[in-house]
Amino acid sequence: MKFVSEPSIRRLARYLRIFDELKQRGEESISSSELGQIAGATAAQVRRDLLALGGLGRRGTGYPVSDVARELGRWLAVSRTRPVYIIGAGKIGRALSRYPGFVQRGFRVVGVFDNDPKKVGTKYGDFTIRSIRDVQSLATKDRPEIALVAIPAESAQSVADELMDAGITGILNFAPVLLKVRKGIVVQNVDMTTELLVLAFRVEQRHLVTPKKRLA
Amino acid sequence: MKFVSEPSIRRLARYLRIFDELKQRGEESISSSELGQIAGATAAQVRRDLLALGGLGRRGTGYPVSDVARELGRWLAVSRTRPVYIIGAGKIGRALSRYPGFVQRGFRVVGVFDNDPKKVGTKYGDFTIRSIRDVQSLATKDRPEIALVAIPAESAQSVADELMDAGITGILNFAPVLLKVRKGIVVQNVDMTTELLVLAFRVEQRHLVTPKKRLA
Repeated sequence: MKFVSEPSIRRLARYLRIFDELKQRGEESISSSELGQIAGATAAQVRRDLLALGGLGRRGTGYPVSDVARELGRWLAVSRTRPVYIIGAGKIGRALSRYPGFVQRGFRVVGVFDNDPKKVGTKYGDFTIRSIRDVQSLATKDRPEIALVAIPAESAQSVADELMDAGITGILNFAPVLLKVRKGIVVQNVDMTTELLVLAFRVEQRHLVTPKKRLA
Repeated sequence: MKFVSEPSIRRLARYLRIFDELKQRGEESISSSELGQIAGATAAQVRRDLLALGGLGRRGTGYPVSDVARELGRWLAVSRTRPVYIIGAGKIGRALSRYPGFVQRGFRVVGVFDNDPKKVGTKYGDFTIRSIRDVQSLATKDRPEIALVAIPAESAQSVADELMDAGITGILNFAPVLLKVRKGIVVQNVDMTTELLVLAFRVEQRHLVTPKKRLA
């Protein structure tokens, strides 16, 4: 297995989303330039990215939608089921617990946690909210691989420590704090301010010509 | 102005966030390898990215935290105020309306909209929720540059059309649908399934050696 950089993984995951939507709409094919326009990439980059899947595109007819969707799904291993924990039953945690699309991609929420005594023990959708104090003991049974951490900054690090002790290998961090993790644990920060900054910068340079070729 | 690719902008925005947190913690400097570890990049990549800011780092002493934070902020133009609209007062829209960090980066929420008659006219935090029907007329006065769209898929495209008519240039799209936009309008999709897929893939390859040098 060759190391794939985060920007490349991100683009391939985006393509998968696009191909799935095209499939739902009944589209049969798409060209590299159309795909690039939707995904925010150049046609050349799209062709390079999708070359890794074994040359499914054909000059003149574009990419066959269902074949590419299937190959992308296989490449991103979406058929594997991955149990995930949601830490925090606030607005973000609750929205995540019923996020459309997780199940389809193999992400199965197996626990929602909070430390507010008014929330612990209550039902939210299909979940009974459990106490964050029990994360570690429950995790030995549930074996979550990934945790989505959506709690205030001050408690995020100590919860992350417990999650790592419980064997978690990936954290999607919504707390506005940088988590210190051990080697071999992957953290990905979701931060809307960063998203807005990236968008605003892209807006500023929207009239600049995109280079035909650019480094991946 | 030279075109900067989205992955590069994203990394620079992340560095800014990290430098700001280091500054708050009273740290004076950081090495390229430490920074890379936090940001999920190689030391070589960090050095290349920050070279664009005018060679602020010094071999042996690392990057001076407050100088780099200031230059990154200048580069990303965070001192400029950008009015933004939030479309949708559901869980995500409400969380966004009080998102910590927007104001600090110059993003000022000037309107929150919904089409639920039970919500329109009510107060949420500092905002009176307005009707989506009035987006276009109000936008001519408020002049938002960016809209955060957090409404169900079925209504997202028609609202996006109205927003474009009202002069919006950037859309941060949380709706699980790909929006069709005119040339010169930038859309960025925020999709937690994509984030989870990227994280899961990074977890799978966490034991692979990161190449010392890799393309940006």
